[in-house]
Amino acid sequence: MRALRWDGDCLVILDQTKLPGQKNYLRCIDHRQVAAAICRLAVRGAPAIGVAAAYGLALGGLEYKGKDRKELLDYLSCVRQTLAATRPTAVNLFWALDQIWTQLEQAKPKSVAEIRRLLIREAKAMEQKDLETNLAIGRHGNNVVPSRAGILTHCNTGALATCGYGTALGVIRAAHQAGKDIRVFAGETRPLLQGARLTVLELMEDGIPVTLITDSMAGWVMYKGLVNMVIFGADRIARNGDTANKIGSYSLAVLAKEHDIPVYVAAPRSSFDFSLSCGQEIPIEERAPEEITQLNQSPITPAGAKVFNPAFDITPHRYLDGIITEAGILRPPYEDSIAVVAAD
Amino acid sequence: MRALRWDGDCLVILDQTKLPGQKNYLRCIDHRQVAAAICRLAVRGAPAIGVAAAYGLALGGLEYKGKDRKELLDYLSCVRQTLAATRPTAVNLFWALDQIWTQLEQAKPKSVAEIRRLLIREAKAMEQKDLETNLAIGRHGNNVVPSRAGILTHCNTGALATCGYGTALGVIRAAHQAGKDIRVFAGETRPLLQGARLTVLELMEDGIPVTLITDSMAGWVMYKGLVNMVIFGADRIARNGDTANKIGSYSLAVLAKEHDIPVYVAAPRSSFDFSLSCGQEIPIEERAPEEITQLNQSPITPAGAKVFNPAFDITPHRYLDGIITEAGILRPPYEDSIAVVAAD
Repeated sequence: MRALRWDGDCLVILDQTKLPGQKNYLRCIDHRQVAAAICRLAVRGAPAIGVAAAYGLALGGLEYKGKDRKELLDYLSCVRQTLAATRPTAVNLFWALDQIWTQLEQAKPKSVAEIRRLLIREAKAMEQKDLETNLAIGRHGNNVVPSRAGILTHCNTGALATCGYGTALGVIRAAHQAGKDIRVFAGETRPLLQGARLTVLELMEDGIPVTLITDSMAGWVMYKGLVNMVIFGADRIARNGDTANKIGSYSLAVLAKEHDIPVYVAAPRSSFDFSLSCGQEIPIEERAPEEITQLNQSPITPAGAKVFNPAFDITPHRYLDGIITEAGILRPPYEDSIAVVAAD
Repeated sequence: MRALRWDGDCLVILDQTKLPGQKNYLRCIDHRQVAAAICRLAVRGAPAIGVAAAYGLALGGLEYKGKDRKELLDYLSCVRQTLAATRPTAVNLFWALDQIWTQLEQAKPKSVAEIRRLLIREAKAMEQKDLETNLAIGRHGNNVVPSRAGILTHCNTGALATCGYGTALGVIRAAHQAGKDIRVFAGETRPLLQGARLTVLELMEDGIPVTLITDSMAGWVMYKGLVNMVIFGADRIARNGDTANKIGSYSLAVLAKEHDIPVYVAAPRSSFDFSLSCGQEIPIEERAPEEITQLNQSPITPAGAKVFNPAFDITPHRYLDGIITEAGILRPPYEDSIAVVAAD
């Protein structure tokens, strides 16, 4: 199952809002379609939206019908802005657009055709690199998974959130492939149920034992001794290790601390924002109240109910036992270990 | 809005599974209908199901068509068993049936007609008493509510969970009526969304400011300093203060401790099980997986997903700052303060 796939002149996106019931594919031939797909979470997961945005830029190149190199670059600048405005928290989105833009500036392609080729080539390279990155995260992460373990995870950080294999779910996959006796507890992840819909799907397809719980059960399964490790992904990590991730991650970290259970974040280098000193500087997206007040388009609350719907929270670095990256596992003090990654 | 109402020869139950969309009333003329309504949560909330069971016993008296006093008592013994077998965790159910049974044994009614009158009279008295109890809980609880406070609550402990006013929600009502500037955060309470459907409804009808959040947001709203107090109800409290309540309560208590936020349980004397020394002896009901795997009768998970669905968890007494009862606020050490209540 792939979140996205380049098909010659269009980006094919698996519409994750319909999973697991339907496998609908969106064929995007315009960057605005990609932007809309990111906004409404048809494609989601920090690494996946980064690569989707890169392909969105490539589509921008194909959309331009003129022959003027300078005019195309101006157009692409607008395309970039549109794609960057889709979602505020996951830094991978901005990272991916910046990366491609830097390539564009450095390679100085001489013609419209050359620009188009470069954009497609770089997006493809980014997609391929993301898969390799996740395999490396899995290898490193496997070293901290006990040979027999209950692992609690949150949201979806698998193949569907990336360009394959996954980050936190990649670590789980690597441990399973290494023959470890692991059982996963998947938090359903309200409001949009990425855990119930996507993580359970991926793990069942891979034959990895998984038990679905509501988010509110996390403390109780820890209390009952069923969890030996908590692992989740990241949408943005500040220089001190403070980590923005799907709402509910912070609660899990606090609960794990109370039960002496280690907490790991698994994320690629592209999820670090080296420009931010701490988590308080990370913008947290608030999404529409209807995500909470409606189920299957039917209201579940009285009309006019007031809702708070932050899509992410921030886990302060002191709750994290390690941050698993493709370069290895970063340990406290994170200011130092992250500085090494930043300098690479 | 009343959870139940005796109407001469039948028990009228508001079907809470349909709220807030529809106000359907079930007219129960047979104890089996009451038992079924309790099983499928048409009536729910520990105090309410206790009183519903008491009325179920009264219906048992009316169902019996013979004239033999002894035969009726035998029949009622079966009725009692059926009602007691509906749900295992809330002790109020067993307490209510025991109370009525003790009255029956002590009053020694001489005829079928006298037994019927006694059963109806005692159930009505229990209903009236529950309302008075909740008003007293509210009065006592108001003393620990700050004059300006964010209060996080879980599930529904209001008029719908009781015979009026509510326990934890009764404290909130009392604080609001006392003119305090309170804002409630209502956890939606997956899987069955009693918070989103019922608590928000009750608070909006009373004009008490309420913000709905998913259960996973609790830690984050605490971290942001929006919560000054956590208060929830109880389905059973052991002699040492360990408290069984709706799944997710334990997580809230742990999160509150981490943020130095006081946690209160509000519950009537009928929620105490003086026969149990600690929470580990409380049976925890596990309910059908479909409560989690389906929304509005549509599947949200892949077919065959494995689920863990405990309806309750246990909060160890060390997390509780006080247990608010109709007799006052019990404080640690709970062994002592609860012993005083037990001896009353």
